[in-house]
Amino acid sequence: MQETNRTEISTLGEFGLIKHLTENIHPKNHTTIRGVGDDCAVLQYPGEKQILVTNDLLMEGIHFDLTYVPLKHLGYKAAMVNLSDIYAMNGMPKQMVVSLALGKRFCVEDMEEFYAGLQIACDAHGVDIVGGDTTPSLTGLAISITCIGEAEKGHVVYRNGAKETDLICVSGDLGAAYMGLQLLEREKTVFNQQLRENQRNGQHASREEELRQAQPDFSGKEYLLERQLKPEARRDIIEALDASQIRPTAMIDVSDGLSSELMHICSQSGVGCRIYEERIPLDYQTAVMAEELNMNVTTCALNGGEDYELLFTVPIGDHEKISQMKGISLIGHITKPELGCALITRDGNEFELKAQGWNPLKD
Amino acid sequence: MQETNRTEISTLGEFGLIKHLTENIHPKNHTTIRGVGDDCAVLQYPGEKQILVTNDLLMEGIHFDLTYVPLKHLGYKAAMVNLSDIYAMNGMPKQMVVSLALGKRFCVEDMEEFYAGLQIACDAHGVDIVGGDTTPSLTGLAISITCIGEAEKGHVVYRNGAKETDLICVSGDLGAAYMGLQLLEREKTVFNQQLRENQRNGQHASREEELRQAQPDFSGKEYLLERQLKPEARRDIIEALDASQIRPTAMIDVSDGLSSELMHICSQSGVGCRIYEERIPLDYQTAVMAEELNMNVTTCALNGGEDYELLFTVPIGDHEKISQMKGISLIGHITKPELGCALITRDGNEFELKAQGWNPLKD
Repeated sequence: MQETNRTEISTLGEFGLIKHLTENIHPKNHTTIRGVGDDCAVLQYPGEKQILVTNDLLMEGIHFDLTYVPLKHLGYKAAMVNLSDIYAMNGMPKQMVVSLALGKRFCVEDMEEFYAGLQIACDAHGVDIVGGDTTPSLTGLAISITCIGEAEKGHVVYRNGAKETDLICVSGDLGAAYMGLQLLEREKTVFNQQLRENQRNGQHASREEELRQAQPDFSGKEYLLERQLKPEARRDIIEALDASQIRPTAMIDVSDGLSSELMHICSQSGVGCRIYEERIPLDYQTAVMAEELNMNVTTCALNGGEDYELLFTVPIGDHEKISQMKGISLIGHITKPELGCALITRDGNEFELKAQGWNPLKD
Repeated sequence: MQETNRTEISTLGEFGLIKHLTENIHPKNHTTIRGVGDDCAVLQYPGEKQILVTNDLLMEGIHFDLTYVPLKHLGYKAAMVNLSDIYAMNGMPKQMVVSLALGKRFCVEDMEEFYAGLQIACDAHGVDIVGGDTTPSLTGLAISITCIGEAEKGHVVYRNGAKETDLICVSGDLGAAYMGLQLLEREKTVFNQQLRENQRNGQHASREEELRQAQPDFSGKEYLLERQLKPEARRDIIEALDASQIRPTAMIDVSDGLSSELMHICSQSGVGCRIYEERIPLDYQTAVMAEELNMNVTTCALNGGEDYELLFTVPIGDHEKISQMKGISLIGHITKPELGCALITRDGNEFELKAQGWNPLKD
């Protein structure tokens, strides 16, 4: 949160705040008829287009920790999480409605930061912000984003279309966002310990001094931080698949971990799968960090969340085309349902996949 | 919250809970291609239709108080708030996406109650629930609802179309929901006082006994409670306007108080207005309750929120048609902007309208 140039939200009021945050937003898509400023946004899509709608509700303390996530990054990431859902249906995002519930500790400048991040993400993906609302919160920050997108009729890819012998593909690499989170959590613990120690020793450093002392050394781990703080929804993969004339049979984005997402595809498609440990794409920094934390890197890739990569299946006939695409890994294949969902380890053992993904409701 | 038959949400987990809550939901609208269960809902509207999108984020302790609002009523009301926004654009609601953030004190039965209320509202208005999501919350309950509706191209009514000499109309009556809230707040205070007194006197009644003792007498005030706990979005008014071939020039729903909504119409339309105190529609119970609480009933009608009536303007040529419509009050007319927004009191004085509506961010 900003500590200088603090303008209380009460000076603008609810309507004033929204007007202030959205006054420079001008819709660019021809499907956007009317944006912010009325009871509803008004859109108009050609009759042959199918419309995709997704909503995510992000809660402070559950989905983000403002002690180490800057509000601009949070705005960017909140947008990306929703854009990723549209791409996961093989669609293109076009509009976004943003509702925020704010505790009293937030000021106008905080919300400007949040909107700045949101706007960068929307501009990069050609999305109009068409509705905005703010409301108070007794406690933390709550962010609700609804994203609307389009797809040609018949082009939408569901989770339930995977068929036996289909190839299982995933974009990018996995587990890095989770490792980034571990890194940030570790530094937070160190920072808090240091703070307590200073207090015990009667040292009262200024807040600035404390923050300066605590500057952690993230060198060599920049990629992990970037994956956690600034994830990128994979529009490029959707465009590349289209250019290669590959239509996935099933697709989902990896938000809760590879294992959990793969099991969604398999259970909804009524199939089983085999994936190979050695084929799971990992970044070098992810492997180093897992080693440092004494964690199994495969477990991190299988169950760590927030990668926002695309997991999809393609017919075996597309093998050559998909192999030539950059940034796609072939990690296994779809089987009969009786065979279940299994991971084949490097030493040839077979383990049943479990959805141990990020599921805080199961605590 | 339920105290008997308590099933912990952890026994189902996030995905299990949503599956459980939505398994009996079967989309009925032909514009709903795919509902709950994928990354996005998929819709398809004919090209001549315009699509309306609205989102509301409701926070516990700000928008509702679970000490006196049953979860079934809350589900119903949360739906109505959003349906009302679609009607306020002269549209018909068709789909709804529901996201919930839940604190640990909620159980599966609580969410069944919430969904039961939601479903009753959606069934009554022909709306499909096409997306559902639950997530944990560190504190209270947060409810995010996105509603999607349709309108014929050119039929959408905005806030900015009011013109000089237009008549100002409002449906139903005003201030009752606010009086209902006062009534519930008063009973809550009485209940808490009684509880403290019992404790001071060393009387430890069981929870059931306490609740029974505290049963307040709401007789003669049922309408106020109904307006607060079970508001109705005015689909009937939209249908009646259509049947009478009246197209409002501007429209908004009254969620923050008549005064605030009227000023939105006037500022966005670049006009002024005159409304007449004696014409503001009031229910008998509202007047009695205001008297009891020593409040000015006109102030309650002007600034009390949550009526969910429709406020709209029509050309003066529609005077006869609109006068014949049941449940519509003609409360004033639109003027030149220079004349500002004014209330003409019963004794002929003129007061400038102020948006003192329900704006908790201004506290």
